[in-house]
Amino acid sequence: MKKILSAVALSVATAASPLMADEGMWQPNQLPQIEDQLKEAGLEIDPKNLTKLTEFPMGAVISLGGCTASFLSPKGLVATNHHCAYGSIQFNSTAENNLLEKGFLAKDFSEELAAAPGSRVYVTTDVTNVTDSINDGLTDEMSGMDRYKAVETKEKSLVADCEAEEGFRCNVYSFHGGLEYYLIKQMEIRDVRLVYAPSSHIGKYGGDVDNWMWPRHTGDFAFYRAYVGKDGKPADFSKDNVPYEPEHFLKVNANGVAENDFVMVTGYPGRTNRYRTSAEVENQFEWSYPTFRTILHKYIDIIKENAPEGSDARVKYASTLAGLNNAEKNWGSMIESYGKGDLLERKQKLEAELEAWLLDNPEMKEKHGDALAALDALIKEDLKDQAVQMKKWGMNRDTLSGTAARLYRLAIESEKPDAEREPGYQERDLTRIKEGLKRMNRRWDADVEKALYKHFVAVYAELPAKDRVKSYDKYMGISGKFNADKFNRKVDDMFAKTKLTDQDVRLSWVGKSVEDFKNSDDPFIQLAVATYDEKHEKELKDKEQSGKFKKLRPQYMAAIIDFYKSKGKPVYADANSTLRVTYGNVKGYSPQDGMLATPFTTLEGISAKHTGEEPFNSPQKQLELIKNKTYGEYEDSALNSVQVNFLSTVDTTGGNSGSPTMNANAEFVGLLFDGVYESIIGDWDYNPELNRSIHVSSAYMLWVMEHVDNAQNLIKEMKIVR
Amino acid sequence: MKKILSAVALSVATAASPLMADEGMWQPNQLPQIEDQLKEAGLEIDPKNLTKLTEFPMGAVISLGGCTASFLSPKGLVATNHHCAYGSIQFNSTAENNLLEKGFLAKDFSEELAAAPGSRVYVTTDVTNVTDSINDGLTDEMSGMDRYKAVETKEKSLVADCEAEEGFRCNVYSFHGGLEYYLIKQMEIRDVRLVYAPSSHIGKYGGDVDNWMWPRHTGDFAFYRAYVGKDGKPADFSKDNVPYEPEHFLKVNANGVAENDFVMVTGYPGRTNRYRTSAEVENQFEWSYPTFRTILHKYIDIIKENAPEGSDARVKYASTLAGLNNAEKNWGSMIESYGKGDLLERKQKLEAELEAWLLDNPEMKEKHGDALAALDALIKEDLKDQAVQMKKWGMNRDTLSGTAARLYRLAIESEKPDAEREPGYQERDLTRIKEGLKRMNRRWDADVEKALYKHFVAVYAELPAKDRVKSYDKYMGISGKFNADKFNRKVDDMFAKTKLTDQDVRLSWVGKSVEDFKNSDDPFIQLAVATYDEKHEKELKDKEQSGKFKKLRPQYMAAIIDFYKSKGKPVYADANSTLRVTYGNVKGYSPQDGMLATPFTTLEGISAKHTGEEPFNSPQKQLELIKNKTYGEYEDSALNSVQVNFLSTVDTTGGNSGSPTMNANAEFVGLLFDGVYESIIGDWDYNPELNRSIHVSSAYMLWVMEHVDNAQNLIKEMKIVR
Repeated sequence: MKKILSAVALSVATAASPLMADEGMWQPNQLPQIEDQLKEAGLEIDPKNLTKLTEFPMGAVISLGGCTASFLSPKGLVATNHHCAYGSIQFNSTAENNLLEKGFLAKDFSEELAAAPGSRVYVTTDVTNVTDSINDGLTDEMSGMDRYKAVETKEKSLVADCEAEEGFRCNVYSFHGGLEYYLIKQMEIRDVRLVYAPSSHIGKYGGDVDNWMWPRHTGDFAFYRAYVGKDGKPADFSKDNVPYEPEHFLKVNANGVAENDFVMVTGYPGRTNRYRTSAEVENQFEWSYPTFRTILHKYIDIIKENAPEGSDARVKYASTLAGLNNAEKNWGSMIESYGKGDLLERKQKLEAELEAWLLDNPEMKEKHGDALAALDALIKEDLKDQAVQMKKWGMNRDTLSGTAARLYRLAIESEKPDAEREPGYQERDLTRIKEGLKRMNRRWDADVEKALYKHFVAVYAELPAKDRVKSYDKYMGISGKFNADKFNRKVDDMFAKTKLTDQDVRLSWVGKSVEDFKNSDDPFIQLAVATYDEKHEKELKDKEQSGKFKKLRPQYMAAIIDFYKSKGKPVYADANSTLRVTYGNVKGYSPQDGMLATPFTTLEGISAKHTGEEPFNSPQKQLELIKNKTYGEYEDSALNSVQVNFLSTVDTTGGNSGSPTMNANAEFVGLLFDGVYESIIGDWDYNPELNRSIHVSSAYMLWVMEHVDNAQNLIKEMKIVR
Repeated sequence: MKKILSAVALSVATAASPLMADEGMWQPNQLPQIEDQLKEAGLEIDPKNLTKLTEFPMGAVISLGGCTASFLSPKGLVATNHHCAYGSIQFNSTAENNLLEKGFLAKDFSEELAAAPGSRVYVTTDVTNVTDSINDGLTDEMSGMDRYKAVETKEKSLVADCEAEEGFRCNVYSFHGGLEYYLIKQMEIRDVRLVYAPSSHIGKYGGDVDNWMWPRHTGDFAFYRAYVGKDGKPADFSKDNVPYEPEHFLKVNANGVAENDFVMVTGYPGRTNRYRTSAEVENQFEWSYPTFRTILHKYIDIIKENAPEGSDARVKYASTLAGLNNAEKNWGSMIESYGKGDLLERKQKLEAELEAWLLDNPEMKEKHGDALAALDALIKEDLKDQAVQMKKWGMNRDTLSGTAARLYRLAIESEKPDAEREPGYQERDLTRIKEGLKRMNRRWDADVEKALYKHFVAVYAELPAKDRVKSYDKYMGISGKFNADKFNRKVDDMFAKTKLTDQDVRLSWVGKSVEDFKNSDDPFIQLAVATYDEKHEKELKDKEQSGKFKKLRPQYMAAIIDFYKSKGKPVYADANSTLRVTYGNVKGYSPQDGMLATPFTTLEGISAKHTGEEPFNSPQKQLELIKNKTYGEYEDSALNSVQVNFLSTVDTTGGNSGSPTMNANAEFVGLLFDGVYESIIGDWDYNPELNRSIHVSSAYMLWVMEHVDNAQNLIKEMKIVR
C-alpha cells in the first residue's frame, strides 16, 4: 500500500490543468494544484486561503448534516436553503399558525424558535489524514472480512478518541474507495433556532413541478441561528444559551452576480460515482436504473391505490410520494441522458487508454498490475446475484419488519462493549435511533403498508427456494408453491397483533435484552429473532465482499491517478459528504437544439408563472411589488429587473444544498439549491455543455427580505456590500 | 359611403411608418407606402416590383386553395409544404406502396402522379377594385337584408362575368369589413401532379407533438407540377398535357438565411381579427373560447369513449381527433396568451383615444359620427342569444342531418336561375359539393355519431321551449320534459333506417327535385324537409344582421383608418385569403423568462429528438448522414451544421402554409409552415416580442433532396444560387 500512497502524494503535489473546465469537487487542500485555472476563471483571493478550514472564508462554511450552510453575521446567523430548514418550519407550524404558509420572521433574538429536534450545526475544526494509521497492519493476503473488520476497528477507535472531547462529532471518511482516509472533527452545535423563512409560496415556489428544472424562480432560502452555552461550548437548548460567535462570516453582496462572473461553492456534496468502471456504468444504466424504475412505478401505484386522493392516508404519504416521484424524475433523466450521450463509450475508451499506457510503461505495469481486471472480476462476482437481490428489494423495505430487526440488533450489539459494537448501534447513535423510532407514525398507514408488503413478498416468492430466506419462509409459513391467500391472512394477522405501531412500545424496546426479544409474542419481533442468524450470515458475506473492494478499488484508483498524472491532470475524489470546493462561472446552456437557457431569471418571471394554484401561487404583495417595478436597490441594470435565480457551471450534487455561493472575493452572492434536469447524470458524469447548478441570488434574497418581509433587522445584522 | 372611401384612398396614398415593427399583412399595392421600413429591414429590390402581380417575383407566387405555393422552375415545378400536399401523397399510397412512409420521387416527368382529386393551382392574373360597383345603389336607409342581398347579387354578377372566360376562377373579397371590395381573377390549373415528397418521417417529423412548437425540425416541403393543355390553357388531367411554363419562378438560395436577415413571405393568409372592438375581444376570450373549449373537451371525450384505442372507429376518427386536439391547443394557447397579456386593455385604450381624437377634431366627428358606438350596439344585440346558440352548436354539427339539409337546399336552389341561387349552391359549386359527399365514409362511424348526437341534443333540450326549434322538436317527438330514453330510441331508429350512409345514395340525391325530397321516407331527409322553413327563417335573420354589419363595420374601420392616418400610420386589412406580403427578419425570441429560442435548429437536433417511435422516427440513412457530418455544400459555418428550421418575425396565419420565404433579393430561402405557440393569438394581436413564424430552410430542403433522396434531377431543374 505504501507504493500506492506515494503515487497519490505525488499527484497531489503536482500543479496541472484540470480534468475538464469547471469539473471537480476539490478537497480544499488540493486547491493550490489548480491555482492557475482558478485565477483564469476569475478568482481574486489567494487560493491558498481556501485551504485553511478554520480561517476566512472556509471557517464560515458549515454543515447541517445532509445540507450545507454558512455564517452571515458575527452573531451566528446561518443561511441555508428553505428546503433544508423545511422540517423546522413545519415543526413550528400549527393548523392555526401555519408558518410554511405565512413565513416566519423573528424580530429579535427572543422571538427565535427552537428548530426541529435533531437539528444540528457542524463546524469543522480539524481534518487529519489517517491513512497510515488505518492501513497499519493491513496485508494483501488477509481475507475481505478481516480487512473489513480491521478498518472498522481502527475507524471506531479513531472516532472514539476524537469524540472524547465533549461537544464534538468525528467521522473517518474514505477517499478514492479507500486510497486515503481522513478523520474529520466537527463542533456539534445542538441549540439551533429558526430565525426567518419566507412563505413557502416564495421559498418553495414551483414546488415539485419545477424541481430539477430551469427556468426557475424559487426563493429557496431561510435563516437559522446557532446557540451555545455561556461558556461558548455546544449545549442542549436553553433560554440561557447565547448566540454562537463564529470567527468568520461572509459579507453579502447585494447585487448578486453578472454573466460570466467567477463563482465558487463550498459545501458537503454527498456521493458521486465518477470513477466507476465501464462494467459498473453499463450495469447501472442498462440494468439497475431501468429495473428499479419499474419497481418504483409499482411502488407508487400501490400507494396511490391504497391511499386515494383526499384520504388521510394520502396526506401521510405525500412526502413519501414526493420522494418517489423525485427518484422517478431522477432515474428517468439519467436513463435519458445516458441514451443521448456517450458515457459508456468514453469509459471504455479511458480503460483502453489506461491499459495501453500501462503496457507502454513497464514500471507502471509493475506497480499497478492488473488493477482494473481484478476490480472488474470482483464487480462481476458482486453483480452475479443482483436479479435475486432485486426481487427481495421491496420486501426488505417494510417498515415494521425493519423496525423490529433494528431493535433486535440494538439489543444484540448492546451486550458487547461499546467499541466492539456495529457502527450505527453504538452509544453515540442512540439519540438518532430514538428519533427514527419517533418519526414513523406520521408517515405510515397499515393498509398501504400491508398492500406494499403483500405485493413485494409475492415478488420475492417467485424466487426458487434456494435463493429464498429459509428462516423467513418458515416463520411466514411459505412452503412449496406460494399461497398468496394464506400468506395475506398471515400478514393481516401480524399487522393486527403487533404493538410496534405504537410509538411508546417501540421506544420501550430500546434497552431491552436479547432474551426479552426471544420471549416476545409480537409477531414482527418474533420474525426478527427468527430470521436474524440467516440475515446476519448474508451481512457477513456482504462485508467480505466489501473488504475485497476496500483492497481492489484503491488499487484501481491509484492506477487512474498515476495515469492522469502522466497527462498532468490532478484527480479529485468522488464526493463523500466531506467539505469540497467547486468553481466555475455564471453561464447559460443549450438544453436542446434551438433553445438557450439564459443564466438569469427575473422578478417578472415569477408573475408570469403565477396561476394562483400551488405550486405557482405567489403572495399578492409580491405580485404588486413586481407589477410596480419596486426593485429598490437590487435592480440589475442588464436585466432591467431583480435577478431571482441564476445558473453556473459549478460541479455539485445532493448535500451541496444550502451551500454559499461566493464571488471572486469570497463575498456571499447566493445559495446553491439545485441542478438542471440535464445535470442529474452529473453524479456519474460531468458534461461541461449541460452541467449547470441553480442558485438563488443574494439580490433576490435581500429584495424579498427588505420589500416583501420587512426583515430589516437581519439585513442590519449582516455586512452588506453594495 | 363616398366620404368614407376617400378616407381610405388617402390613407393608402400616404407613406408612413408601420403600425409596429414587422406587423402587417400588406396588400401588394400598399408596399410603396412602407418603402422606408422595407428598406430599413433590409429589402434590396425595389418595393414597387412587388406591386405587380404578374411580374417577378409576385408572378411566381400561387395559391393551392387553402395553402400557398410558388414556382421554382421554368417547367412549372411547384414548392409547397408537405402538409399541403399530404392528401395527394396519401391518395397515391397503398398498403403495399406507402408513399407517406417511403416518400416519393419522380425521376422524370413521366413518373409524376396525378394529385388528389380537386387539387388545383391558382395563378392570380388580375385584381380589380370593385368597391364603387358593389356600393352603387346602396343607401344608408336600406334594411340589413336589402343590403345583404344587393351586395350578394352584385358579387355574383361580377364573378359570373369574370368566369365567362374559361379556365378562370373569380371571387369578390371584402376588405376592412366591406370598406373596399376587390374582384380577384385566377387561372385555375386543374392538372396538378405530385413530383416529390420526402418520407413523412422527414416531412412530418415531430407530428402533432411539435405542431405550433419550437424547437422544430420538420422538413415540411413537397413538390407538385402544374400541367396545362398543349394550348397552354387549363385542362383536365390528360397524358397529352404539358408542363405549365410560368412567366416567372424563384431562384433558390442554397445557403438559407443568417440571423437578422431580411425575409418576406408572400401568400394567402386566411383570416385575422385584428380590428375587432374591445367588446368583441372581451366576449371572445372571456366567454366564447372558454365555453367552446369545454364543449370541445366533451366532444373529444365522447369520440374517445365510443371509438376506443385500437378500434376501427378510432382509425376513422384519427384525423378528426387530430383536428380537435389542434383546436384545443390553439384555443388553450390563446386563452393563456390573453391571460398573460394586455390585449383588452390596449383595445380599450385605443377606443378611448379614438373617441378623444374625434372630439378634438370636429370635422372627423362630423364625418365618422358614433361609428364605434353604433357598431358596439349591433355587436351587443348580436351576442344577445349566443348562450342559446352555444347549446345548439353540437347538435348542428351532426353529419347526417347536415348532409340531408345541404342536399335539400341544393334541390331548392336548383329550381332557381343560377344567378339567383344561394352562393355555394350554384353550378360552379357542384363539383365541390359532390367531392364533399364522397369524403364522408372514411371519417364516420355510426356509434360515435349517435353518441355525439344524443349528447348534444340533450344539451339543446335544456333550452326553454321558446328558444328551441319547434319543427325539430315536433319531428323528433320532443315535448315537455325531455325524455332521453325515448329520444335515443328515435335516434337509433333514424340511424338504422337512413340510407344516407351509402355514398351512392347520397350522390343520387344531387339533381333530385324538391318534390322528391318531400316524398322521401329517409328519416334525415324528412327531418331536413320538416325543419327547413324554420331554419331558413333563422338564416334570414342572420343575413339581416350580416347586412347591418356590412354597413357599420366599414364605418368604424373608416374612422380607425383616419385616426391612424392622423398619426402617419398606414393600415393593412385583416387577412381574407387574398394575396399579402409580410416582411421581417430572422430572429429568435424569449418564450419565457430565463429561456431564449434561438433562430435556427440544426441537423443534430433531429438526431437528438429521434426516439424511433412516431412522431420522432428519423430514417436511418438520415441519422447516419448526420452522424458522419455529411453536410455537403449546405453547411452553415456559423452553426457548424446544416440549418433545418428557422424563426422570423413575419406576420402570418393559416393559409400562409407553403408560402415561399424570400430574402432581400427575392430569392427563395425556404417555406413558411407554422408559427410558434405564443403566436397563436396572432390572429387577434401581433406581439412583436413573441410573434414568430417557423420556416423550413432552403438549405435543409436541398440537403434532404441531394443527400437523403437523390433528387438531383429536381435540383438541376431549379436555378440554385450558391
